[in-house]
Amino acid sequence: MAHFDIQREKLEQATNILAEQDIDLWLTFARETSETPDPALNLILGQGVTWQSAFLVTRDGKRIAIVGGPDGGLIKETSLYEEVKTYDEGIGPVLRETVGALNPRKIALNYALGDVASDGLTHGMFLQLASIFKGTPYRTRFTSAGSIIAPLRSRKTPAERARMQKAIELAEEIFAIVGANLKPGLTEIDVANIAHDEVKRRGLTTSWDWDACPIVNTGPGVEVGHGGPTNKVIEEGHLVHLDFGVVYEGYCSDLQRMWFMRGKREQQPPESVRNAFAACVSAIEQARRKLHAGVKGWRIDEIARRTLTKKGYPEYMHALGHSVGMACHDGGPLLGPRWPRYGETPLRPIEPDSIYTLELGVGTERGYIGLEDEVHVTESGAEFISPAQRELMLAG
Amino acid sequence: MAHFDIQREKLEQATNILAEQDIDLWLTFARETSETPDPALNLILGQGVTWQSAFLVTRDGKRIAIVGGPDGGLIKETSLYEEVKTYDEGIGPVLRETVGALNPRKIALNYALGDVASDGLTHGMFLQLASIFKGTPYRTRFTSAGSIIAPLRSRKTPAERARMQKAIELAEEIFAIVGANLKPGLTEIDVANIAHDEVKRRGLTTSWDWDACPIVNTGPGVEVGHGGPTNKVIEEGHLVHLDFGVVYEGYCSDLQRMWFMRGKREQQPPESVRNAFAACVSAIEQARRKLHAGVKGWRIDEIARRTLTKKGYPEYMHALGHSVGMACHDGGPLLGPRWPRYGETPLRPIEPDSIYTLELGVGTERGYIGLEDEVHVTESGAEFISPAQRELMLAG
Repeated sequence: MAHFDIQREKLEQATNILAEQDIDLWLTFARETSETPDPALNLILGQGVTWQSAFLVTRDGKRIAIVGGPDGGLIKETSLYEEVKTYDEGIGPVLRETVGALNPRKIALNYALGDVASDGLTHGMFLQLASIFKGTPYRTRFTSAGSIIAPLRSRKTPAERARMQKAIELAEEIFAIVGANLKPGLTEIDVANIAHDEVKRRGLTTSWDWDACPIVNTGPGVEVGHGGPTNKVIEEGHLVHLDFGVVYEGYCSDLQRMWFMRGKREQQPPESVRNAFAACVSAIEQARRKLHAGVKGWRIDEIARRTLTKKGYPEYMHALGHSVGMACHDGGPLLGPRWPRYGETPLRPIEPDSIYTLELGVGTERGYIGLEDEVHVTESGAEFISPAQRELMLAG
Repeated sequence: MAHFDIQREKLEQATNILAEQDIDLWLTFARETSETPDPALNLILGQGVTWQSAFLVTRDGKRIAIVGGPDGGLIKETSLYEEVKTYDEGIGPVLRETVGALNPRKIALNYALGDVASDGLTHGMFLQLASIFKGTPYRTRFTSAGSIIAPLRSRKTPAERARMQKAIELAEEIFAIVGANLKPGLTEIDVANIAHDEVKRRGLTTSWDWDACPIVNTGPGVEVGHGGPTNKVIEEGHLVHLDFGVVYEGYCSDLQRMWFMRGKREQQPPESVRNAFAACVSAIEQARRKLHAGVKGWRIDEIARRTLTKKGYPEYMHALGHSVGMACHDGGPLLGPRWPRYGETPLRPIEPDSIYTLELGVGTERGYIGLEDEVHVTESGAEFISPAQRELMLAG
């Protein structure tokens, strides 16, 4: 199953990252993941579990799974774990014994402040681990696995990048069809339906909630991020804005595209709109030029933010960019401002081979302008991997 | 939107349960629920959130939502919360101020040992709450919301029960079509495909992972709970077993059905199979007769378990029954043995108006026998709401 090839690559990466971070053991503890999924399981298992399950990865390359009896067969079939232990009544004894034999100095658990992709362990499950290891030295050796999961998700392998490239291409195909069909009188919902039909025709899913992907905005008075498309009608002389992406073999794309709806009186957007659009393009480009692996995300966000505000535009109330991958918001370091809600994520250095969005926007009297493209970040810089929008497309 | 009618009913129930439990404030704290959903949000919001969000329900009936700016519109549209506060940079100040004004003696948070449906708060989010309330009296007033969420999910309103009844009817329709098409030579996967075609034709989804719903087992040597259907072929004289359910307007069904594949030589299953089947029926029936609201689940499980083992059959390695609802495993009190992996859930009294599965099985030389039906539990007893299987159906 090609499905597990990615997980095999990620498990190999994980061993290296454990060594880098000087952590002996990474312990993923999950149960009933259909209800409370742990995003880390996508990286190291590629499926869910029912009973309480532990997945142990060590810095010297051992991989041990401890799962409920009924899950045992499925986990063995993946061949991802050299040892698969099963239990019937309770995971405690076998988990204590297995960890005891490894005698780790540090045990990384899947919790983190601010980084959702590293925070899949529920508080109740944390308390259960604390109870299982009560009275052992291991109870005091727990640490956050954020320093493992963030680079593991961020550093895309060639196989991951190929899927992400395809997810971008498919989204671009759909944007082109939407653009060709835009006309005055269509509602935002009509536009979303055009995109949805193309998603279904290709047997794909959307990168986030179906009902709000694409986000469609037209005309003035847009409350950005307001959610799903509405019955608002496209008018001549207004802007049309889509925020959209699709999932291809488990990997997301996340892009924004803009059109000006030409009318009898106006073949081109007014100067104020052209200027605002150019300011957005410029802010993204200034930031992209300074982006490379190792830089802290808030510094890049600040470049874009200042470029806009210096020109008199209001600052955008979100981050300039986020990592994309298996999740549309893939966690890890953020290209964002140092606001409390982002926790530590804007302070962390950007990982090599990560894929980021660069996105921002401003409101105008003709509608919201929002741009978003994706870049591949390496030690030497950041290159667009989506065809970055540099001109307002003309529709109608 | 009919969608939010259920949430409105559940929020009203929640206020009553807070008073019952003597808890002033129930605080649901969530973010990026597409990655780490909190199952409680289905009850009280009916949609997800992106930024850190707090939903406060008080014992005197106040409902306050605190959400990120971009989520504000969508939350207001639901009309579920009389007050919707928004923030841009960090939720901390407004959350501290709001809780301070309520001055609760106890603050219930969504964590619990053993009960997944009450354990949606991640450990990282718990640490963030601890940090937000550091230095205030509220930091020491946190308690588990398990005693609120479990009864809230368990006590089905008439509107919920109507949806669940429909989910059962739809599953039964599909079981009938599967049964009519069973024949020797079909593989387990062929059988699953018949069911899947009918699910798609009705525009439904399955109650758990598509690839393992239905579970299909045929012939001897079945490893129960092994997961998805395989290429194993149905033979004359063998049993065919399905574990299956569908979701109707957000509510699941979960049923098991059994057939004997007649052949030229055998029109009826052998006596050993008939006896084992009768033992399963009897074990379920003995348990059902003692089941009512207020009883502790482990006592009911024990009745079924003993009925089987006294007749010389091995005990089933799972619980006799679980609550069904928005989730197939809907959390709350369990009709299960007092095994460590079930935590406190078998010790808790069964709630009135809850819907439970009654399910168990035994292996035979012709294949696995597994039965599962659903009951509505009230103060006065437990009545089947699915057409309980009492006879092996004959296929072919």
